[in-house]
Amino acid sequence: EVPEIAVIEGDGIGREVVPAAVEVLDAVGDYAFAEAEAGDATLDETGEALPAETYELAASADATLFGAAGESAADVILPLREAVGSFVNVRPARAYPGVDALRPETDLVFLRENTEGVYAGHEDRLTDDVSTLTRVVTETASRRLGEFACEYVGERGKDGFTVAHKANVMRETDGLFRDTVLAEAEAAGVDADTVLMDAFATRVCLDPEQFDVIVCPNLAGDVLSDLAAGLVGGLGLLPSANVGPERGLFEPVHGTAPDIAGEGVANPSATILSAAMLVESLGDDDAGAQIRSAVESVLSDGPRTPDLGGEATTREVTDAVLARL
Amino acid sequence: EVPEIAVIEGDGIGREVVPAAVEVLDAVGDYAFAEAEAGDATLDETGEALPAETYELAASADATLFGAAGESAADVILPLREAVGSFVNVRPARAYPGVDALRPETDLVFLRENTEGVYAGHEDRLTDDVSTLTRVVTETASRRLGEFACEYVGERGKDGFTVAHKANVMRETDGLFRDTVLAEAEAAGVDADTVLMDAFATRVCLDPEQFDVIVCPNLAGDVLSDLAAGLVGGLGLLPSANVGPERGLFEPVHGTAPDIAGEGVANPSATILSAAMLVESLGDDDAGAQIRSAVESVLSDGPRTPDLGGEATTREVTDAVLARL
Ligand SMILES: CC(C)[C@H](C(=O)O)[C@@H](O)C(=O)O
Ligand SMILES: CC(C)[C@H](C(=O)O)[C@@H](O)C(=O)O
Repeated sequence: EVPEIAVIEGDGIGREVVPAAVEVLDAVGDYAFAEAEAGDATLDETGEALPAETYELAASADATLFGAAGESAADVILPLREAVGSFVNVRPARAYPGVDALRPETDLVFLRENTEGVYAGHEDRLTDDVSTLTRVVTETASRRLGEFACEYVGERGKDGFTVAHKANVMRETDGLFRDTVLAEAEAAGVDADTVLMDAFATRVCLDPEQFDVIVCPNLAGDVLSDLAAGLVGGLGLLPSANVGPERGLFEPVHGTAPDIAGEGVANPSATILSAAMLVESLGDDDAGAQIRSAVESVLSDGPRTPDLGGEATTREVTDAVLARL
Repeated sequence: EVPEIAVIEGDGIGREVVPAAVEVLDAVGDYAFAEAEAGDATLDETGEALPAETYELAASADATLFGAAGESAADVILPLREAVGSFVNVRPARAYPGVDALRPETDLVFLRENTEGVYAGHEDRLTDDVSTLTRVVTETASRRLGEFACEYVGERGKDGFTVAHKANVMRETDGLFRDTVLAEAEAAGVDADTVLMDAFATRVCLDPEQFDVIVCPNLAGDVLSDLAAGLVGGLGLLPSANVGPERGLFEPVHGTAPDIAGEGVANPSATILSAAMLVESLGDDDAGAQIRSAVESVLSDGPRTPDLGGEATTREVTDAVLARL
């Protein structure tokens, strides 16, 4: 049976880079695409940023490819991550040969907890003066992430991972997170060390090669992976996979880029690389490798969009990737 | 009357860089120094990382100079910040001519909220599985920080400031923080804009010059200022001021550096620059300017400690600074 891929372009350059990635998917395999709407435009038209049909489609499709959403991003992406049952957000951040990067030696993968932390989001306005947010960390979610991290480094022949945390201040919650992930590593015979998230921010700038796979709570993973994006030359190159037990949601780390939306010059690389992670999640490892090497080849000597200092259009870059598959 | 300065060396290189800064203070003004103990060694000896006498001294002295503490850092520095009634942590992060920096054009000042956020720290282990932390944001603390930020940019001839936050996820708490700080700016006629803290992490790497003064919640300020340290060449150069209504606590942003502690080669610049902020807090602006320009002069063509690629000792760098006062 042909796998069904839900396609949600969203807003801004999502409407340009997602179609590019769909062409690439179409070229490497046999997939049935089902389109659905979400984001600011959908909110304007229907009164909902994420219509129930879109949620249901993501919850039932074999995989979902998502672009970006504007102001309504949190109302779209957080429920979509939940729709696919995602517990980890996999965010590789690497510099590519030929692409201008602040730290060309950067090659990191962030494994970001995807269900809780401050994103569990119980907030209250207790009085006029006082607001609170209840940050939630469970052993269950930490253990599941730890297990995933052990499998991940095993499958990829990595030596181990680093747990980034702030347990010197958040002793109970980040302490539980850190200790549970470390216990999984110990049980699996995987090497694991730890770093304070603030120290990580300094050290990754000074010497990114001292790190490899970084396991973090939700918000730490959000900020630290965006920092790594800065070291490799921007968000235009970073794909991500929201992995669940049965299906995943794949999205570029970048947003809607309103300044260039509609001009046909958005860099489709992050979304095409997200599509590579998508086909791998369906078991098509060859197709994934094929896409990845085509994108890398184009990044190294092919046409470039303006964010990478070139003058090429999204169309030209997509054609170059298609030609090198 | 001679101002009283509490001096707390702490652990590790704190015992080397604080005496260096005290020599510099002694050279520029007339101060009475009162020493007190805190940190890991104090914990071993007395059973307490922060003895009551040390807390009381910081709470009553005109200003406190602190070095660093080891494993017990959170038990030392967080109460000390409270002892001086500090509501804002001022963290300048700039690159110095002649010092190797990833982004030599970096010149930022972080104004970090210093009393609440996740540091308010109400944590619970609700069940075996579930732990929680209550993050607290008040209008009072946000307003006081906003007022301080408006005065700060006014006194320094800055154009305005940027509020870094994550209000798209922490809507109530960071929403209250952002809106309150922005309202202060509006009332004071100060320009203010906002940025998501994750987007800031990418953008500051790509182009630090687009930012100037950044106003942030407590943990955001911790991580983002350490990121900026990575852009200017490490923590060895970053001073900080924990400012309260009547007194302050001044400390380098770096820690105890156990790898080099005791060798006499620690870079005293961050602590000497913290001493410059200290004398300014006592109204000695000339002494502050004098210290700062001596440090900058030594950084540009004087002896350098190993962290900056040189072979000089703490003693040699301190002597060079003293000679240029
Ligand atoms: C839009 C926002 C809710 C989201 C997040 O914080 O997870 C985004 O920053 C991301 O990293 O995908
Ligand atoms: C030691 C720790 C509690 C402290 C903090 O988180 O504030 C440190 O990282 C700092 O920034 O001074």
